[in-house]
Amino acid sequence: MQHVLAANENLAEENDALFKDKNVTVINLMASPGAGKTSFILRTIAALRDSYGIAVIEGDLASKVDAEKIKEQGIPSIQINTGGGCHLEASMIRQAVEHLDLDAIDLLIIENVGNLVCPADFTLGESARAVILSVPEGDDKPLKYPFIFKSSDVLIVNKVDMLELTDFNMERLREVVHGLKPDMRIVPLSCRTGDGFAEWLAWIQERLTDNHSQK
Amino acid sequence: MQHVLAANENLAEENDALFKDKNVTVINLMASPGAGKTSFILRTIAALRDSYGIAVIEGDLASKVDAEKIKEQGIPSIQINTGGGCHLEASMIRQAVEHLDLDAIDLLIIENVGNLVCPADFTLGESARAVILSVPEGDDKPLKYPFIFKSSDVLIVNKVDMLELTDFNMERLREVVHGLKPDMRIVPLSCRTGDGFAEWLAWIQERLTDNHSQK
Repeated sequence: MQHVLAANENLAEENDALFKDKNVTVINLMASPGAGKTSFILRTIAALRDSYGIAVIEGDLASKVDAEKIKEQGIPSIQINTGGGCHLEASMIRQAVEHLDLDAIDLLIIENVGNLVCPADFTLGESARAVILSVPEGDDKPLKYPFIFKSSDVLIVNKVDMLELTDFNMERLREVVHGLKPDMRIVPLSCRTGDGFAEWLAWIQERLTDNHSQK
Repeated sequence: MQHVLAANENLAEENDALFKDKNVTVINLMASPGAGKTSFILRTIAALRDSYGIAVIEGDLASKVDAEKIKEQGIPSIQINTGGGCHLEASMIRQAVEHLDLDAIDLLIIENVGNLVCPADFTLGESARAVILSVPEGDDKPLKYPFIFKSSDVLIVNKVDMLELTDFNMERLREVVHGLKPDMRIVPLSCRTGDGFAEWLAWIQERLTDNHSQK
């Protein structure tokens, strides 16, 4: 296992060098199944597509439904099927990237396999890691799956439109998350209503502007 | 990997023989993080504790919050911490069972690590597999995580009280699931309101009565 992780780390560093050379900001997007990763990507595309070149890599066990939803938007989208595998690895990203024109891309979003455990261990060469927690999952999840939250740069709390149907407590969540990682940026929003989405867009645009101006 | 799975299979068969010898019905409960596994177990305990001996094995990466919730009910509860591992294995169950008095137990519920991928491959010696899908996760999840659904005997659709806040379509779900596994029993319910829970209790009691009468 240590050997597998070390080999992945080396490839991830090569990916990272390539992305930096091409001025591509790469987000590794991780979450449970059904937390809203694809809806989040679709809304991000809608908001930024006129200003930036965007592409998506979709990681799934077997299906290609998510990649098709992205393609319907006219956005380059590469499907990786892991054949049952529980996470993406740097080697898969390397292969997928060969099908993308990086010179035309400012933002590459990688949708990892829906899983709050295994993706934490495999870096892909990303610029930043975003993890989505959805309100119906409960505010105790960072306590129970600490590794993936610790490894992330920004926490999106999705489905805030469902808050009143649950006992989810945003303050309790903040305490737990900042106990794990004091500087974690937490962005509550709803991909359904759009509430709070502007804060995420500001966060990502800050990371895009530098690169974009160098294209 | 094949070697790991074969070794697990052998140990699982030994667990199964032990459970049969002791007339214990064992449920391997699998789901995404936050689908409601612990709430489901707590409600099952409340409904059946006067008639049956119940115990719980809790699988978690690091915390012990779930095992403590069960213990507060006065029900034997063994915590397995996988130290970051993404699924339970038969060897872990073997060790945990040493701390339980199987002669006093009719129903053993094993709460697997919250993960719709890895637990599918590791049989534990269980009598049946139950998988929970919660409404906010969306009705497309069996299409995207087919292996775990195919391997299960009963599908609990939890959080039906949230149906009207989503575009979850129960008929679409049934079609997809029965396409994967034609004889899958599907039980929609809400652990919050109790709606539909009687159908689950009937299902599990059918499997308990035979064993219980032999104690």
